[in-house]
This record gives sequence, C-alpha cells and structure tokens, in this order.
Amino acid sequence: MFNVKSKMNSGFGNLQGGLFSKIEKADVGDGVAKLLSSGVDILGWADPFFPDPSIPEKVKKVMISALEEGKVSHYSLPIGRPELRAEIAKKISRQTGLDINPSRNVIVTPGSDSGLLYALMPFISEGDEVLVPKPSYPSNFLNPKLLGGKTVEVPLYDEDNYAFRIDEFEKRVTSRTKVVLITHPNNPTTTVFRKENLIKLCDFVKKHDLILVSDQAFEDHIFDGIEFVSPATIEGMWERTLTVCSISKGIGLSGFRIGYIYASDEIMEVLYGGAVNVLGAASTLSSIGAEAIINDVEYLDEVFEKLERRRDLVNEVFKDTPGISFRPSESGILTWINVSKLGKSDDIANYLLKEANVLVNSGVPYGMEGYLRIVTACIADDDKARAVFEKMRNAFIKKYYELK
Amino acid sequence: MFNVKSKMNSGFGNLQGGLFSKIEKADVGDGVAKLLSSGVDILGWADPFFPDPSIPEKVKKVMISALEEGKVSHYSLPIGRPELRAEIAKKISRQTGLDINPSRNVIVTPGSDSGLLYALMPFISEGDEVLVPKPSYPSNFLNPKLLGGKTVEVPLYDEDNYAFRIDEFEKRVTSRTKVVLITHPNNPTTTVFRKENLIKLCDFVKKHDLILVSDQAFEDHIFDGIEFVSPATIEGMWERTLTVCSISKGIGLSGFRIGYIYASDEIMEVLYGGAVNVLGAASTLSSIGAEAIINDVEYLDEVFEKLERRRDLVNEVFKDTPGISFRPSESGILTWINVSKLGKSDDIANYLLKEANVLVNSGVPYGMEGYLRIVTACIADDDKARAVFEKMRNAFIKKYYELK
Ligand SMILES: Cc1ncc(COP(=O)(O)O)c(C=O)c1O
Ligand SMILES: Cc1ncc(COP(=O)(O)O)c(C=O)c1O
Repeated sequence: MFNVKSKMNSGFGNLQGGLFSKIEKADVGDGVAKLLSSGVDILGWADPFFPDPSIPEKVKKVMISALEEGKVSHYSLPIGRPELRAEIAKKISRQTGLDINPSRNVIVTPGSDSGLLYALMPFISEGDEVLVPKPSYPSNFLNPKLLGGKTVEVPLYDEDNYAFRIDEFEKRVTSRTKVVLITHPNNPTTTVFRKENLIKLCDFVKKHDLILVSDQAFEDHIFDGIEFVSPATIEGMWERTLTVCSISKGIGLSGFRIGYIYASDEIMEVLYGGAVNVLGAASTLSSIGAEAIINDVEYLDEVFEKLERRRDLVNEVFKDTPGISFRPSESGILTWINVSKLGKSDDIANYLLKEANVLVNSGVPYGMEGYLRIVTACIADDDKARAVFEKMRNAFIKKYYELK
Repeated sequence: MFNVKSKMNSGFGNLQGGLFSKIEKADVGDGVAKLLSSGVDILGWADPFFPDPSIPEKVKKVMISALEEGKVSHYSLPIGRPELRAEIAKKISRQTGLDINPSRNVIVTPGSDSGLLYALMPFISEGDEVLVPKPSYPSNFLNPKLLGGKTVEVPLYDEDNYAFRIDEFEKRVTSRTKVVLITHPNNPTTTVFRKENLIKLCDFVKKHDLILVSDQAFEDHIFDGIEFVSPATIEGMWERTLTVCSISKGIGLSGFRIGYIYASDEIMEVLYGGAVNVLGAASTLSSIGAEAIINDVEYLDEVFEKLERRRDLVNEVFKDTPGISFRPSESGILTWINVSKLGKSDDIANYLLKEANVLVNSGVPYGMEGYLRIVTACIADDDKARAVFEKMRNAFIKKYYELK
C-alpha cells in the first residue's frame, strides 16, 4: 500500500489537527459553522464583533464603487498595491515615528498568518532554532517546525505579568538559534511588553546576533495609557527586525486578508524577491477597502472606545466570580482567565460549551494548562455580550459550588 | 557591519528579482503601474482582459449585497468556506468525473501561487529534488529552492510540440527525487499534454514512487477539441497527486485571489493541519463572488468564445509575419512566439517596448532563449487588441528588414 506520509518531511508528516484527528476542530474544519448554526455563541474566534455586521460605511462605499467599475478582477502587485503601501507607510510612521519608504520597507501579505511564516522562511534551514515565549499564539510554535527548524519554548510566568525573563532565554540559546519570535502585545495574555523589558530582550538578540520577528497583530488598541514600543525602533534593531502586522484585529477586517511586514531595505529585497512565489498577492478589492480606512483616526478611536467599553464590561461581570481570576486586559479583544481552581483547560472549555452554550478556547494550545482564552470583543451589541458573559459567570459559579 | 544575508538560508539568500536588482521589474515592483500610466500596452501580465472591466454582473451583485450586509469583515474557515468548497467539488466532478468530498478532498488557497508552494512543502526536505519540465511557469523553478530543495530541469523540445520525453526524466531521477511538478496546460507554451504522453509520465512517477504536483491554472479553456486529462484521474495517481487550480485565468478573476487544491484524504489531512499557518484563509468576499460563478457554464462558454476569438485573431494578424513563427495556442490566454531569427528574447522584448510601446515577456525566465510570451487575451476589446497586435507585427517586420 502506498503511504503518502512516508514521503513527507517531519514538519508536515507529524502534523496534528487535520482531517482525521479533529474534523470538528473549530478553527480549521467545518466545526465553527455547525456550532454557529446550532445557536452556540462563539467567543473562540479572534475576530472583532463576530458574527455581527461591522464594516465601516466608508469602506463599503469605496468597495462597492470599485466593484461597479469592474476592474478589481485584476491582480494587484505581488508586493502590494502602491496606494495601499503608501497608506501603510503612513500608519507605521504615525504609530512609531519610523521613516518608512513604501517602495522599500513595506510588503503587503494576504493576512498576517502567511506573513508570519514568510518572515521566518529566509532565516530557517533544517535544524535551526527559534526561541518562542510561551504562552503565545499557537502558530508561532508550529511555524519553525513546518520550515524544518526547531521551536524552543521560553516560559513566561503569570506572577511576572508574563514579562520576558532574560535568563530563561539565555539558558536556551545555542549555536543553532537564529530567531526570537514574539507576539506583542501577546496573544492570549494581552500583555504589552514594557519598554525596559523589551530593551533587555533586544540586548539579548543583539548580543547573540539573532533576528527578531515581532508579531504585532494586536498593536492598535492598548488600554490604560500603557506605552507601546515597536522593537524595530529600539537602537540597533531596525537592521535585524521583521515586524508583522494585520488589519484583522485592530481595524476589525479579518475577512479581508490584509497584513503587512515592515523591515529594512536589505531584508525587504529578499521578501520582494520571493513575493510572487510565497504570497501571490492580496485581494485587490480588499486592498482598496483597507486603503480607505487604516489612517482614519476617527474610526480607529471609535473602535478603541468600543473595545475599551467591552473590556470594562468584562471586568464588571467577571470580577469576584468565585473559582476564576484574571487581570484586566492590556490590549485588544481578548481576556485570559485562570480557571485552574475549577479544572483543566479542556474540561472547563467543554463544560462551558455544554452548560452555557459558549465556545471559548482552552489555554493548552497557547501553552498553558489551567487557563481559558475568551474573545470578549465578539458580538457587536454590549447587552448581548453581557448576557453571554453572565451565562458564563453563572456556569463558573455553579462549577465552583459543585466542587466545594 | 551587520549583514542580514549572512543569516539567511541559500534559498532566500540567493534570491534575485527583489528590490535592488530590478526595482522596475514589472511583476514585482511598481514598474507595471508606471508603465501603464505612461501609456504602454501591457501584454505581460497573465490576467484576462487586463486592464479593462471584466467582472460578471452576477458576481458584482452578490458581492455588493454581501458588502451591504456587512458581515464579510469576518474570517472564512482556513480550509475555505464550506459553500465555496461545495461549488469547487462540483466543478472538479463536472470536469474530471472524480468523486470529490468538499470536506475531505478540497482546500481553498488565497490564489494558486501560494497553493503551488503549499503543495510542495510537505514533501521537500533539505536537498530533496524536484523534476520540473522546462519551459514552465517561472515560480516552479524557484519554489523547490525556497524550500531548501533542488530544482532539476527537464527539457521539452519545440519540435515535439513540447511533449514530455520520458528518457529525459529517467536520466535525471536520483534517490533524492521526491516530486514531479508540471504545469498542464503549460505556461508559456499553452501545450495541453496528450493523454498517452501523460500516461507515460504517470508510469514514470509510479515506477520511481514519486509525488506529482499538477499546476492546472489554465485548464478551463482548451481549444480545437483537444482532450484535457487531469493526471489525478489516471490509474494509481489519485493517492500521489496534488492538483493545484485557480479562478484567476479560466474564470478571469485574478484579483480575487482564489485558488484550490484537490487531493486524497491522506494528503488533505496534512494540508488541513497546516492551513492556518501557511494559508491563513482566503478573502471572504472573494469566496462569495467565486461561489456565484464557477459552475455557471453559460458564463464559462462566453469566456471561451472570447478567448477562442482572440486566439484566432492572433493567428490572423501574426501569420506569415517574416522573422517570427508560432503555433496556434492550444489553451488559455497566451501565445508563445519564436523570435530567434530577430534576436535574443530580452532584446526583442525591449525592442517592442520602445518601438511598439508594448510590454511582453521575454522567454528567458520561462526557460527558453529566442522566444516571447505574449498575453494575447489582455485588453477586452478585439479591435483595440488587434491594433496592438498590428503595432507589434509592424515592429517585427521592421526588425526583420533591418537585419536583412
Ligand atoms: C497574534 C496573532 N497574530 C497573527 C494572527 C493572524 O491574523 P491574520 O492572518 O488575520 O492577519 C492572529 C490571528 O488570530 C493572531 O492572533
Ligand atoms: C501556470 C500558472 N500557475 C499558477 C499561477 C498563479 O496564479 P494565481 O495565484 O493567480 O492563482 C499562474 C499565474 O500567472 C500561472 O501562470
């Protein structure tokens, strides 16, 4: 019998989560559609205001008129439409103060998931190692392996508010270490790494002559006036940092599939050179939509207010709930909850699905047992969201008293 | 001085075509936009009817109403919207007779360029070899290298009408050979590999226990009643074939970025497992547009008529032009012209740009000196296209008499 797996490299041959292992897996298979249609509230899909309508009128307008004109059937440039790169360069400069040339320092990617893989590709040969803080976005644990490399997890600790411990990095660096891959702000914890902590990490990166890939999908909405620092702006880092961003979370346009990478000319030369092969191009119509909104500061403020209000609502509903604990989110659309007093992550996630009819994420794929990740900015209407949170709170309380 | 290239693997470190080497390169940099705005006719961008409007009214309608509803800001499933996979399965069955399960045998890719790389990724480790017929689509020569593998070119010959010569494959197979990667119909030659020829290639693939990746971006429009056979339908091939398709060429919706792969359950398990990481997802709105049209046989017939008429127009205008020779296209949107009597490919392409104000592709990146690839199905209006072809013919004639 022909065994196709015997033809595969170890990165893909050992892959979990495909067809046979978990065909219902919400984020890959048809599971989420089935759950939605059966009335489950989905707070496990990092997609702002899902499943409710949430496209700004202005974006609709330019996209409808582009459709009517009929030319968006045609390719964009593989490195991204010049108009979109210009807007992205403006956004980056606005947020970081960096001087960004849209034809030398920016590449558009069809979403930042493919951008994250692309940022690693040039640097990883078989056996090369990537240091990945844990917990983190699950893709970051798998990507080095898919490229034939090795993922070396570096623990972060709840008691540190998930800041980097440099000695944990130092312990794990070897002659094969090539890249440090961080998610900043972190997913699932929402942690915004503080400037002093980032400077220490960058010192480590420079000391060992490494590359830094910074996944900043959640950079657009930072609460409580915490300073957000893009590590590419730290001294000596521009030449060795690839910053991977997205309009999926901060602008709330996940379905458009627009992400981008910014980096030095020398790095971008290589990313431009492989663009056709690895990326193809982004959707032309999505690009036109993105152009219209990513520097609309008024709209971004509106989103910020909604997300902040939602964050406060979460704090209000869940505070003092027996059996769970959490910190107020520092950024974005998520809440990271310690449920270890109630049980294991997977068990509590399953319990919530049955008891409260809500889908949330077990912390395990993110790298921690005893936690749940909840996409608290799903559902557009605050009152509806509150009702879902209250169902969850009641389920937590019920569980707590069952265990007592 | 920090040298970022010293940190790169050989696949990316040696990449040509990026920022510094050819910033004007039409298919990567901003060159094509500049050329267009300076009045050059672009016949070097494999994009049907570019730059003219060409979206079917039906597609516009469903997309506009989806935009108005406002939910297309949200993610599709990483393996593709169930509705789109259902339509794709129907299309594949209609074209091949294969029994395709949309939840087990189909994955949507954001364009088939990323699909082509993804189809190779599971099978290539450092040093593995991929046999690629030449001439072919340039990405196919580079992809194995980007994955740390080696591209082994297998020549095709004009005098054979570019059919496979199996002895040329046999000569090049080694213990490291993993994959045969074909483009069928071929780009740039438009060759439809004939059934007997394909069966011989498949016998070779089975004999050496290899994987076949078949790039079928141009499969939708085959002229002169030539039989088109998808190699996955040949005995013993289903279990070892990945077929990579696109709506860019045949349906003419390049800017939508929708491609797809079909393969066995065992292969698809792995592709589903890496979908989030490698692909992310396709654009939700593009998916909805694609769903509305890919099985509209009436529309496809309409496109076929236009392309056939254009093919005939090309034959009419260029026949008996001194200095050049070509075969009538067998498929799609291209014409492959032998200009070796007039000069080198690059020189003649540059000459056409200056003399006739037309951008076409040198045959060199496709693997052959002395040829040009012309995207003869650019420009919607036949009379306008004829005028451009006539400018080119006059330039060829002028060159021919200059050389005499
Ligand atoms: C931390 C992080 N980075 C990147 C992504 C990818 O987002 P996209 O591909 O939509 O840009 C996600 C999506 O969940 C994410 O959570
Ligand atoms: C032979 C062939 N395959 C695949 C592609 C990729 O097309 P897309 O990414 O638009 O599906 C192209 C584009 O030119 C092509 O010529």
